Amino acid sequence: MNDAMSGPDFGASVLELLRRFKQDDRLADGYAHACLERAKAAEPVLKAFEYLPRDVSRRPGLLSGIPIGIKDIIATSDMPTTNGSPIYRDHVPAQDAWVVERLRQLGATIFGKTVSTEFAWRHPGPTTNPWNARHTPGGSSSGSAAAVAAGIVPLALGTQTLGSVIRPAAFNGVVGLKPSFGAIPRIGVHPLSPSLDHVGFFARRVDDVALALSLLAATSDADVHGRPLPGFNTDPGQGIAPLEKPRLRVMRFQHWASVEADQQKVFEAAVAQLREAGALVEEREWEELDAVNWDMINTILACEASLIFGDLVERYPDRTSNHLKTLVKAGKTTAAFDYLAARSRQEKLRTALAEQMSGFDAVLTLPAFGEAPNGLDFTGKAEYCAPWTLIGAPAISLPAGFGKNHLPLGIQLVGGYRQDRRLLSVAKWVEGVLRVEPGLPNL
Amino acid sequence: MNDAMSGPDFGASVLELLRRFKQDDRLADGYAHACLERAKAAEPVLKAFEYLPRDVSRRPGLLSGIPIGIKDIIATSDMPTTNGSPIYRDHVPAQDAWVVERLRQLGATIFGKTVSTEFAWRHPGPTTNPWNARHTPGGSSSGSAAAVAAGIVPLALGTQTLGSVIRPAAFNGVVGLKPSFGAIPRIGVHPLSPSLDHVGFFARRVDDVALALSLLAATSDADVHGRPLPGFNTDPGQGIAPLEKPRLRVMRFQHWASVEADQQKVFEAAVAQLREAGALVEEREWEELDAVNWDMINTILACEASLIFGDLVERYPDRTSNHLKTLVKAGKTTAAFDYLAARSRQEKLRTALAEQMSGFDAVLTLPAFGEAPNGLDFTGKAEYCAPWTLIGAPAISLPAGFGKNHLPLGIQLVGGYRQDRRLLSVAKWVEGVLRVEPGLPNL
Repeated sequence: MNDAMSGPDFGASVLELLRRFKQDDRLADGYAHACLERAKAAEPVLKAFEYLPRDVSRRPGLLSGIPIGIKDIIATSDMPTTNGSPIYRDHVPAQDAWVVERLRQLGATIFGKTVSTEFAWRHPGPTTNPWNARHTPGGSSSGSAAAVAAGIVPLALGTQTLGSVIRPAAFNGVVGLKPSFGAIPRIGVHPLSPSLDHVGFFARRVDDVALALSLLAATSDADVHGRPLPGFNTDPGQGIAPLEKPRLRVMRFQHWASVEADQQKVFEAAVAQLREAGALVEEREWEELDAVNWDMINTILACEASLIFGDLVERYPDRTSNHLKTLVKAGKTTAAFDYLAARSRQEKLRTALAEQMSGFDAVLTLPAFGEAPNGLDFTGKAEYCAPWTLIGAPAISLPAGFGKNHLPLGIQLVGGYRQDRRLLSVAKWVEGVLRVEPGLPNL
Repeated sequence: MNDAMSGPDFGASVLELLRRFKQDDRLADGYAHACLERAKAAEPVLKAFEYLPRDVSRRPGLLSGIPIGIKDIIATSDMPTTNGSPIYRDHVPAQDAWVVERLRQLGATIFGKTVSTEFAWRHPGPTTNPWNARHTPGGSSSGSAAAVAAGIVPLALGTQTLGSVIRPAAFNGVVGLKPSFGAIPRIGVHPLSPSLDHVGFFARRVDDVALALSLLAATSDADVHGRPLPGFNTDPGQGIAPLEKPRLRVMRFQHWASVEADQQKVFEAAVAQLREAGALVEEREWEELDAVNWDMINTILACEASLIFGDLVERYPDRTSNHLKTLVKAGKTTAAFDYLAARSRQEKLRTALAEQMSGFDAVLTLPAFGEAPNGLDFTGKAEYCAPWTLIGAPAISLPAGFGKNHLPLGIQLVGGYRQDRRLLSVAKWVEGVLRVEPGLPNL
């Protein structure tokens, strides 16, 4: 890459880039700058960034030369952090979020702030899908998913409270990882619902999100259990070892009948391929999780959000969306009893997960109902993501093909709670079997 | 002790007993049996036990020969566990609570089940104060406090959700320890309010509760932070080292004016004695904690209790008290918003505690407003205990004298969150300076 003839390889993974930077240090000097040029060229249509710096610089460290997109609800002390809201338009936080500070220590280039929906809830930003600008990129981590898909950055941070990493990853044809609940400190990340909020990643390859998790998993988030994830010791030059022929539990949920035909077809093809390659595939639903009333998840979310945004929607009625107002209103009219009943059920399901995973290495399911919906108003349904977010299970979305509108489709793998390492090893093997490489869209 | 002339020394501490057992193993054989005889003789008036076994046996281990009273909301697989409720009159749990299992492993004799108020809430049991049977022993750990004070057991388990260890300890003239929130696993302990419930101890000496904490502090309670307390390495023959001349922050709170004159006098005398012995004593209130609306604590308690007891009060209207019904009703009519606001304030205060403790080794305050109230209906006010329970700070009550009705009075020391070790070292020094030994009441 980056030679005089072809220019930088914007489709390269983080691991590929690090390998090449090691061979020729000069490549690292120019890469982030070339990405910035690419971003500027793409932005008039893509609109993935809330903020781009004038220029980018390189610092020493493990991730030296790697530009990373930061979802704009994550605090940066040298760039505005709008939280997707006009109320915070000019807000520059005093401190970096924990994850940003850590990335800087590792030598990464904090490349820019990617568009988030308003406070990571439903009101969409302007970002378009890089595969077709008339379609949503999904949300709430819209800009991060689009920026990685467009080859502007090889890695970007997102967050997921219902389906905000897994769904946009699928809609944009990239890899998305939502680690176990509590794996990554959320200090400096604007909360939406502390019992559901997760930090996650977008990248082009399983190895890249595994590397990101190994570098950012920690124990300093005061409101989580405080135990470190089982260690990865990922050598950035190596990637993680695949778990060969895993035992996969296929789950379709009650929503299967509403899934788009192309998505069903891509899913069945993946199942067949994995089975043929030696995976032990068993179809087994989990009725108790399938029966989780969508209202129950929204009860937790609305109650917690109402505490966080209650004052805001009152003080700024003209600068908060109806989506946010509706959410706060729902939370304020909910009884504590119903909230606690939902939290209690969440705990029970989380405990039951270990038993459900017994005999399996991962669950294989869908990340979405099909291609990214047409239009930018609606960022897509989260029914296939939210149950796993509710119970804090690690989940990864992998590209699996394209639909009739030539938009990407994905599959989702889910692991046991705090079994992120194993999930990533399964995903590495699945990635190698499916060999779906969406490449770069025409910008 | 236990020689033919004087009989067993029922006023001995756990450490003294272990020392004597080591010298003469035969002493250990008969001790718990003698305690059982003493219990049976005292029970007609004292009524400290919900259940006493026909006989007691000895098993090997560190605590071999030591009889321990277990509050009857803590599950025992070989004795009924009524939870202080007629609904559970004949209930024998399938499994021991974690703490009971651990005590058995350590060789302790699970001596009997001590009376708890109904589900550790307000509806009192029949226990009387061993110093004067017309007075309450306090609650909710009524039987455990009374049994230790009466010299029936040298150690007993209690629980505290507002003031249920600290207050009865003071009312009975014994040492009571409520460790940091989450220090002791609550598996098998009937919940009242999971955000406030603590397991604690009653004993005659600081060394004994320190030993108990060092043996029972663990990390297996899934709903707490899961980090072990800083190690104690208590040699059961040694006790813990005192922290000489500690820096004490005296806090009187807004309730000081309603405190009984004798309690004020005893407190002032203790402050003077400690100062004279070299403690650095500074009067400094904490307005933010003092201003905590009592309603706020009750909001958390009522909401969480309504989920736990909601079905029960509906199914058994004749076998649940009005106290419990009122609590459930209060919880069911509370908005999630108010509950979460209270939890959020709890977290903020807990975080602020570290700063408040800066420059101090412990807070010195009151455990109660004075002597145990007359009558058995009302177990006493918790205003001096509940703020510390709310923020999860470790707290210890020490005997400090007697009031005008010849009932015991105490003082309370409070430490920083998870600074239990330091708090106990301070308490050891204070105990040595005050030298208040209430002795045994006439039963």
